Amino acid sequence: MFTFNQLLDKVNDAVAALECNQQPDRLYEPIRYELSLGGKRIRPVLMLMAYQLYRFDVETIMPQALALETYHNFTLLHDDVMDRADMRRGRPCVHKVWGDNAAILSGDAMLILAYRLMTEQRTADRQHVQRNPIALAEALQTFTEATLGVCEGQQYDIDFEQRSDVTVEEYMEMIRLKTSLLLGCALKIGAQLAGAPSSDAESLYHFGEKMGLAFQLQDDLLDVYGDPTIFGKKIGGDILCNKKTFMLLSTLHMANPEQRDELNRWLEADQYDPDEKIAAVRAIYDAVGIRKVCEQKIEALFDEALSCLSTVAVSAEAAAPLREFAHQLLNRQS
Amino acid sequence: MFTFNQLLDKVNDAVAALECNQQPDRLYEPIRYELSLGGKRIRPVLMLMAYQLYRFDVETIMPQALALETYHNFTLLHDDVMDRADMRRGRPCVHKVWGDNAAILSGDAMLILAYRLMTEQRTADRQHVQRNPIALAEALQTFTEATLGVCEGQQYDIDFEQRSDVTVEEYMEMIRLKTSLLLGCALKIGAQLAGAPSSDAESLYHFGEKMGLAFQLQDDLLDVYGDPTIFGKKIGGDILCNKKTFMLLSTLHMANPEQRDELNRWLEADQYDPDEKIAAVRAIYDAVGIRKVCEQKIEALFDEALSCLSTVAVSAEAAAPLREFAHQLLNRQS
Repeated sequence: MFTFNQLLDKVNDAVAALECNQQPDRLYEPIRYELSLGGKRIRPVLMLMAYQLYRFDVETIMPQALALETYHNFTLLHDDVMDRADMRRGRPCVHKVWGDNAAILSGDAMLILAYRLMTEQRTADRQHVQRNPIALAEALQTFTEATLGVCEGQQYDIDFEQRSDVTVEEYMEMIRLKTSLLLGCALKIGAQLAGAPSSDAESLYHFGEKMGLAFQLQDDLLDVYGDPTIFGKKIGGDILCNKKTFMLLSTLHMANPEQRDELNRWLEADQYDPDEKIAAVRAIYDAVGIRKVCEQKIEALFDEALSCLSTVAVSAEAAAPLREFAHQLLNRQS
Repeated sequence: MFTFNQLLDKVNDAVAALECNQQPDRLYEPIRYELSLGGKRIRPVLMLMAYQLYRFDVETIMPQALALETYHNFTLLHDDVMDRADMRRGRPCVHKVWGDNAAILSGDAMLILAYRLMTEQRTADRQHVQRNPIALAEALQTFTEATLGVCEGQQYDIDFEQRSDVTVEEYMEMIRLKTSLLLGCALKIGAQLAGAPSSDAESLYHFGEKMGLAFQLQDDLLDVYGDPTIFGKKIGGDILCNKKTFMLLSTLHMANPEQRDELNRWLEADQYDPDEKIAAVRAIYDAVGIRKVCEQKIEALFDEALSCLSTVAVSAEAAAPLREFAHQLLNRQS
């Protein structure tokens, strides 16, 4: 069995070896650029980790692992156009370098390339692997479910910006669609391609889904309470853009009338000193004790995730790397 | 066997019955709108026509036929964003109604829906049709080849606007990718899903490809020489935007030095009376006799198409509707 870091190396090698040199160059160059920006490669690695619970020839599903990574990068590319973002991982976004139209069209091609990779039959060691066509069809269905869900999550995210009545439950469903679904499906696809029992594939899906929710809530938490020297992003970004996170929505729910009024004043303020707004909102967060509430929610989701993992019909030893991965993901500070 | 019009009715019914009512509404509403704008539905009908050369249960491949139509409409939706077009089939474009971001995201979802339809197994008469998974995998591969090719064609089309050294051959390759490939693949997918011999699938592909090229050249011809009361679009649009069509590129090649200089002056002119430019360019076209050249090229492609069709191993009677369709397509005035 390969460790997380060994699988990560394999994925990074495979991404670097991905042939995107077709013509016209102006279509494929932005794709190569976006894929070269790096990232944690969590989705393909999770897929390979689920696969190797059952089979060791992880190289044979590398096209499908790359499909997930290509798809994920496609969403970043189009999201950056929609968000008018300037930078991605320290470098200018595709639409800043090549323009909006190139970003739209190259993104479209990237989504198609992801589907092409999903259906690719990899030859390993010069031998043609005839994967069970039903397993491949099931994996493809899971992939489509995930990709469509991510679009839905993105649309909810956009809708929520204009709404003032978003509930905590709606926020949780939005991040489930936008973030967790793809993580869960990465694991499920790995299991499906390995021919695992469908109950295992489902349990792995739920493990990934709960982990994804915990991860996103932790991201929201770090945005407010993270160590600015480690976090990587500027602290308080969500507060400044009034992002309707679990913490903001829960605080509005838990606050007393004066606290709620003050919070609403900050949400509606047109002109303010950014540092003052961050400090003021954080003071209300502290007053209602939202940090603890959020940490407990993350803990509960983490426990649920591990409980899902424990129902997968493999030995505790085999599941150890996934358990370890979960611990590492939740102990992060950045 | 169903006639063209019977198949068209079936496709239109199926498009109308397509379930796109999921939430969030702002994601699916633009998709329903785009699909409701109508159109000739040529691609799905061609797929069904190829299929019924071999099998009569056309209903069982309706999801795949709808996949092609959904994909085609996705390209129109994103192209309209890139071209900053205002109207599509007499109604405002999606990006004019819902904004650019909605058009980008709904388009992405539409492309995913097309893939979902491509992989759907349709139950006919309450009986589950277990299509040969290899046939389905082959059809999916053909679909991906076509969709990626269309992106490449679109990029060449954009590139050509900035280039002054485009050759006739490059133009033909661009329209092959942007228009013909999908028509050819529609027929090929129909044959593949019916379990036709691969030589037939290839012949049908080439029939569609040549027809598509002839169709596009005729479109270019009608833009210059069409009857304005029938054509539907304003005559001379390609001339005004300096579109590097077969006719313009061939004329530049065939013209004498004075004619070429005059043509180049019109191509480089910043300020001009539109009607004067159209008349002047058409006069040069007439002088070199480009109409005849273009008509002969269309005729030759049409003959090649029919020759490809004749190599398909079905009776002349069975192939008659496709032959008739080809004749109708090329006798059009609009």
